[in-house]
Amino acid sequence: MSPFKLLLVAGTHGNEINAPWLFGQWKKKPSLINANGLNITKVIGNPLAGNKCQRYIDRDLNRSFSPELLENFGINDLETCRARELLSEHGPLGADPSQIVVDFHSTTSSMGSSIVIYGRRSVDLAIVSLIQKRLQLPIYLHEGDNDQTGFLVESWPCGFVVEIGPVPQGLIHNQIINQTFFVLQTCINEISNVINKKAVFPDKLIIHRYLKNIDFPRDSSGVPNAFVHSAIQDKDWHPINSETAIFINLEGDSLKLSNYIKENEEVVPVFINEAAYSEKNIAMILTKKEVLDFEKSWAKDLYELVNN
Amino acid sequence: MSPFKLLLVAGTHGNEINAPWLFGQWKKKPSLINANGLNITKVIGNPLAGNKCQRYIDRDLNRSFSPELLENFGINDLETCRARELLSEHGPLGADPSQIVVDFHSTTSSMGSSIVIYGRRSVDLAIVSLIQKRLQLPIYLHEGDNDQTGFLVESWPCGFVVEIGPVPQGLIHNQIINQTFFVLQTCINEISNVINKKAVFPDKLIIHRYLKNIDFPRDSSGVPNAFVHSAIQDKDWHPINSETAIFINLEGDSLKLSNYIKENEEVVPVFINEAAYSEKNIAMILTKKEVLDFEKSWAKDLYELVNN
Repeated sequence: MSPFKLLLVAGTHGNEINAPWLFGQWKKKPSLINANGLNITKVIGNPLAGNKCQRYIDRDLNRSFSPELLENFGINDLETCRARELLSEHGPLGADPSQIVVDFHSTTSSMGSSIVIYGRRSVDLAIVSLIQKRLQLPIYLHEGDNDQTGFLVESWPCGFVVEIGPVPQGLIHNQIINQTFFVLQTCINEISNVINKKAVFPDKLIIHRYLKNIDFPRDSSGVPNAFVHSAIQDKDWHPINSETAIFINLEGDSLKLSNYIKENEEVVPVFINEAAYSEKNIAMILTKKEVLDFEKSWAKDLYELVNN
Repeated sequence: MSPFKLLLVAGTHGNEINAPWLFGQWKKKPSLINANGLNITKVIGNPLAGNKCQRYIDRDLNRSFSPELLENFGINDLETCRARELLSEHGPLGADPSQIVVDFHSTTSSMGSSIVIYGRRSVDLAIVSLIQKRLQLPIYLHEGDNDQTGFLVESWPCGFVVEIGPVPQGLIHNQIINQTFFVLQTCINEISNVINKKAVFPDKLIIHRYLKNIDFPRDSSGVPNAFVHSAIQDKDWHPINSETAIFINLEGDSLKLSNYIKENEEVVPVFINEAAYSEKNIAMILTKKEVLDFEKSWAKDLYELVNN
């Protein structure tokens, strides 16, 4: 048997409960998901936050995997300790190492079924190309945002996040469960195809790369004095331009995108009005659509990773 | 000036942030809402929970107004103390007493703009009749549920809850803000009409009275093993009967309402999949529609209350 191991994570945020619930059902009934012969480890990212149905206890676990935190042993908050624990168990140098990690999230934004990758690691680009080819999912490429770092999947050689929404925090939703189930099975199938050398890679990969975080307009005391305009609420992945109204206040005064970007180009907002991002001063994230040529080296690197 | 005082409460639950935000904007710009000459006090119910964007700190504030808690001075959790504080300030025997209280909530359920009353106090029935006549809002009458008691508005001579949804916890939503604004202004207008003896009461009042709480099906360890069926998700206030599928599991097996009620009558589910009710073992609340004849004594009692 190949030494390859796949790590699946749910509940990295304790109030995103659909994937953890699905994992629980799967544990009770292993035939629910077809593992396709893969050696799969399932873990709940932040079980203590899950018990309280809170995003986190001390700090956001999915911002706790930066070397600055992990290697500073003076820092001992719950999530930094949990990050070290997950790495010591399942990390690349851990007791039971996994080569690929998939981290399942949900969002209050209307992201549909989507994928997030961090930077442009060839192995990540290769694997998400397969999933995009199969499901046509949009992919958000997070890069160059120094305020948001330390994501879980970055600590593994290969990994990505699945983001599914919209769903309020703390409730199981029929549609979100079905979407999570479907994407989960597809991830397993495609990774299995790589292991079995049956993967058929596409010629192109469409990504939406990070451009800029947009905060709510705020008054002098820091309170938002406008909210997301109905013109873009629930319109994640829809292109907008400088003339698009993105915020509106109670007097009906709207703020156009031209107040935030100079260029008169189409951009694509994602994570619009994600509840958990308010504390991060993010009302939405602007991205730019890019079509990348699939590079053979991506596939080569991925094959090397899973066969070593 | 009439000694009448109206108390408006927002943020009784700290993660229901639309009404508190609206109150904040109103405070900054008093002309935002037309007070119609009323003496209005606005308070944030649970500001400490609001700071943490949690429903509550120690216990649900909106279940903390029972005499058993309020009068037991051995109980000193944050919310019981806050309940005593609100009463000592604005309660009927408080320093600055209000006669009517309106408590603004939001919900993850698709309740639209709706009203909740607790029991059949004549003054409550009178005031919500006016609002229903004006806006055609549905009214949920909570009564006879011994597991859910100690609601804030019950501690005032007259009062009701405004519930608006669907909205995830912890985010400001264009439509929810607009609905809250509109219902708030209507409440003030109608109460002002009572004060000014210009109220025109309807002949009928339509209510949906509490029948039964329905919990999720659970396994032996207490974990839900099915979720709300898509046939009723987002269908609050829509009549269902014993043949309606209300839950479904991952194998596609559905559970009909006939598993929960004997009678083959139409019932009306409300608070379907409210995130905060999962911990209360409530997946939805079944109600029965009733049309009440408006009784003149209701109006008489209301006039007496506001003029004393």
